[in-house]
This record gives sequence, C-alpha cells and structure tokens, in this order.
Amino acid sequence: MSRIALVTRLSPEAEAHWAGHLARALPGERIDGFRELSPAERAEVDIAIVANPDPADLAELPNLVWIHSLWAGVERLVAELGHLARPIVRLVDPELARTMAEAALAWTYYLFRDMPAYAAQQRARVWKGLPYKRPERTTVGVLGLGELGAAAALRLRDAGFDVHGWSRSPKEIAGVTCHAGEETLERMLGQVEILVCLLPLTGETRGLLDARRLACLPEGAQIVNFARGPILDSAALIEALDSGRIGHAVLDVFEVEPLPEASPFWGHPKVTVLPHISAATDPETASAIVGAHVADYRATGRIPPSVDLTRGY
Amino acid sequence: MSRIALVTRLSPEAEAHWAGHLARALPGERIDGFRELSPAERAEVDIAIVANPDPADLAELPNLVWIHSLWAGVERLVAELGHLARPIVRLVDPELARTMAEAALAWTYYLFRDMPAYAAQQRARVWKGLPYKRPERTTVGVLGLGELGAAAALRLRDAGFDVHGWSRSPKEIAGVTCHAGEETLERMLGQVEILVCLLPLTGETRGLLDARRLACLPEGAQIVNFARGPILDSAALIEALDSGRIGHAVLDVFEVEPLPEASPFWGHPKVTVLPHISAATDPETASAIVGAHVADYRATGRIPPSVDLTRGY
Repeated sequence: MSRIALVTRLSPEAEAHWAGHLARALPGERIDGFRELSPAERAEVDIAIVANPDPADLAELPNLVWIHSLWAGVERLVAELGHLARPIVRLVDPELARTMAEAALAWTYYLFRDMPAYAAQQRARVWKGLPYKRPERTTVGVLGLGELGAAAALRLRDAGFDVHGWSRSPKEIAGVTCHAGEETLERMLGQVEILVCLLPLTGETRGLLDARRLACLPEGAQIVNFARGPILDSAALIEALDSGRIGHAVLDVFEVEPLPEASPFWGHPKVTVLPHISAATDPETASAIVGAHVADYRATGRIPPSVDLTRGY
Repeated sequence: MSRIALVTRLSPEAEAHWAGHLARALPGERIDGFRELSPAERAEVDIAIVANPDPADLAELPNLVWIHSLWAGVERLVAELGHLARPIVRLVDPELARTMAEAALAWTYYLFRDMPAYAAQQRARVWKGLPYKRPERTTVGVLGLGELGAAAALRLRDAGFDVHGWSRSPKEIAGVTCHAGEETLERMLGQVEILVCLLPLTGETRGLLDARRLACLPEGAQIVNFARGPILDSAALIEALDSGRIGHAVLDVFEVEPLPEASPFWGHPKVTVLPHISAATDPETASAIVGAHVADYRATGRIPPSVDLTRGY
C-alpha cells in the first residue's frame, strides 16, 4: 500500500507542469494531486511531495511516512509542519546551486560594474565613465556557506574577487577567507564592499542584518539578498540607503511576497526589486532527484537525509 | 639623442596621471608632454606615446621613429597618422583583454538574466518571474576573435553558454564553434540569441551589422556592442528594436562620442547606453607594457610588432 500525493498551493498550470515531470521521473508510482484523491486513497499515501502546501491537507494523510519538499528553503515547512513529526527532505539540487551561484555572480557584476549608476546617468543623458577597480581589489562577502553559499563563493572567487565567507559553523573553502560564528560577523562586515546573503532563515538569522550590523559595512557598500526577506531589517536598510551609508540593494526576497504594491522598495532609486527569481527550481532536474530518492526508499526503506528540526535547516 | 613625447588630447589631469605612471615604468627615459618641449627638444624625440593625438603635433617631431598608442583600438590613428609612414604599435594588454572579457560576461548576464525586463517590471510594480533557460541552451555569438574577442568567448564558454565565434580568418578555440569569412556570417547570426560585437573597425567591418544582417538574427535576439559605433547601423538597429525583432541592445560605443544629447538611443526603452566603459585601459598595467617595449627597443633596436596599415589592425 503505497501512493504519492502532490500537495501544493501552486496554480493549476504550475502543478500540472510539475506533475508531468514527476510522473516521468517516477515510473511505476501512483502519483496524484492531493485534491484528486478520495479519503480511502489518501489513507494509502506514504510519501508527500510538497510545494507551499496547506498544512491541513497534510493532516489528512494518516499514513504519511515522510515529506519531500520541491524547494530548497524549508523554514516555512518546519514552522508549519514541524508538529506532524514526519521527516522533511529538502531539495538539494546541484543545478539549483549552479543557478544560484550564477545569479550571485550576475548581480555582483551588476553592482561591481555600476549598472544602476549608469542607468541613472542614461536617464539624465550624462556621459561619464565611473572609476573602475579590478575584482581582486574588491571584497565580496558571502553570508551562508551551505550548498548555495559555497557554490556562490567559488564562482565569485573564480571571477577574481577577494571573497570572504561567513557561516555559523567553521568551513574551509580554498581561496575564500572563511569566518565562523556570530562574534566574527561584525569584523567581517567591516571589510565587505558587496555583501551577498545566502543564509537559511532560522531563529538565529531572523533580523541578523539589523541597523547595528548594517552600520558595520564600509561607506557605500552594496547588498544582494537572495536568501529570505526577514533576515534583513527593511526599515534599517531603507534608513542606510537614504543616508548614503549603503550604496544600493538588490532584493529578490521580502518579508511578504509578492511584494505589496505600497512597499517603499518598488520606487526606491537605490533598490533593485526582483520577484524571487534568483534561482528557481528546475522541474526537470528536481524531479529526477526526487525520483531517485523515492526509488531508493522503495528499494531499501531508507528515508533520505532530512531537515534537522532543531536547527531548522 | 633620444627622447619620448607624450602626445594626447586628454584633460590635463588625465595626461598628468598617465605621465606619472609612464615615468615610473620608464626609469632613465626623458619623457615629457608634447606641449612642454621646445622645437630643439622636439627634434630629439624618437618615440611618441599617444592617446587621441593631434596629427599636427606628431608632424612636428621630425626624427620620430615609431608611435606607441595607449589604446587597443587604432583605426583613427591609422586614418589620421597613416600618412606619416611610422610604425604604430597598439596596446595589447592582457589586463585589457581580461576586463573586456569580464564586461562581455557581465552584460551578457544582464541580458540573459532579464535585468532590463525586471527593471521595467519594477517601474510598473509588477511581480512576475520570467522563464529561465539554462546557459547551455542559450547561444551567444562573439563577433571578432582577436585578443579581446577570444578572451570573451572563453569567459562565456566557461560560464556554460553555447558559444559561437566569428572572425575574418579561421580560428580555433576549444569549446567554441568558430566560423570564418563573410559567407558564413548570416548563417551564424541565425543561431545567436545574444550577440557580442568585439570586431576592430576597418573598411570591411564598417556597417557590417546592417538591416539585412540584423534581420538574420532570431526574433527577440539581443545585442551588445563593445567594439566601435560605425560597425552597427544605428538607424537599422532602432528599426529592429521598434519592430520587436531585436529585444534589447547594450551600446557602449557610438558613431559620435560622447553620444549627442539629441540621440534617440538615450531615451529608447530597449537600449542601455554606456559611456564607452566596457574596458578602460589601466594606466598601471598599460605603462608597464609600454615600458617593456621601449626598454627592448633601446636595448636591441627592435620596434615592437606594429599595426598592419593595409588591414587596419
């Protein structure tokens, strides 16, 4: 008695797109959208594949053994589904790490090569070259050195930047100056001209980049947040941008998404707003990974490595 | 009897900045700005180091043996100074090639990651992810495979793009599909989603990208011109942008520079205007190269490899 339920709050088109890829990656499995299952069929479900699921739906799967998330970030799952006490497996897709590292480099270049400033000059019809400083003389800091942060740090290092990394627990990455632990954060921030945030959202990282931490950055430093909105204090950021202390911010994530129309970020001249697109999950590569996990579980009974509910990632 | 004249139409500050770097790189040489030399001293000059020089100034150096340009592009020198029949050495600076390759990658990412489209969405407060296609499924074409073009093609290849290159004479670059000769150009353009122009300006490349060639590109293709303005037909480009056939153009070079305030490029929503900054010469690294050339000439009498005045590069 085994069955897979796809539990999402995606649009019907997006869910159908995923269902097609998952069906191809899981031959021989019975896989259906949660809504299409009868109560008797729901009782047969042992694995849920989820993307922004309604917790109430999962509570209707009495024989659920484990949950596979289609996203890399699981803080909401942990918060909303932690009480179900089922292992939650997050997506660790090398293609996702590659895409995120590419995004980190692309938007670091955006700031490093002064694209926002040149766009402002174009609007004012000003022809003026801005000083260029070689990448090896530019310090880029990466917050978070998990799969995504480490991949980003390596791409930035290979592009010639002077890369510093920071993480909760000590890491070693060749050619990257690694710092660990909260007590090293402020000193590290003091050297960083472009800061790329790729931390998971946990109790410890919520509000980590507050007014005091932002004030540690050198005058004119620039920020990229590709992690989660609540890690960066919005009010403190706007104050730092308005005072000129922070030069520009690229924000892909926000406390509320989609970003409300009234948000001051939309119209702020020193903010680039992106609609959470730095690294979207690729249904093709992600389905293949989920498929391999499920096949291994069916063959061996082993649940893939799951999220540590106490650390939250 | 030897002496070096620095002949430029740079601002006094910029010339002084160069003079400082050159003096440090040319110990033991007498090096002065052209204007500071008496007629008798001008007669002692055997080497001119030039940046956008007034041809009339060079004509006042009767014993001039050869000319070192501080820029990589020399089409204007060839046109204006060819009649002097003195060898013209252009700057071949690996740092320049690195900076240009970086610019090619940075602005290819700008287009590839839809930064202009997201900027337009931000202005309209629209939250919408655009489809993402992996780099290996995106064809980038590089026109020109000299030092700059080859370096750019390699950077783009290493970033995972499907890179095609085109040059006048056949080249081989590992991992890059190389095309050569005018007869292959239109077929190559038919496959290119992002076109990066790094050709030298010569009689053959002037107007190369005209309405007919632009029409070969697939619908929605995007263009980066980091070479010289006259290679790309401005009127044809604007027509192709307005019809939607070309998606966006990043223009760093123009027929007239600085770009006149009345140019339609400034306010065109599908054009990014840059003030000729893709790869500025670095006075530090460039002076070291000029210094080595001069030292070698003093020691051996060998003039460094110079521009072929018939090919124009």
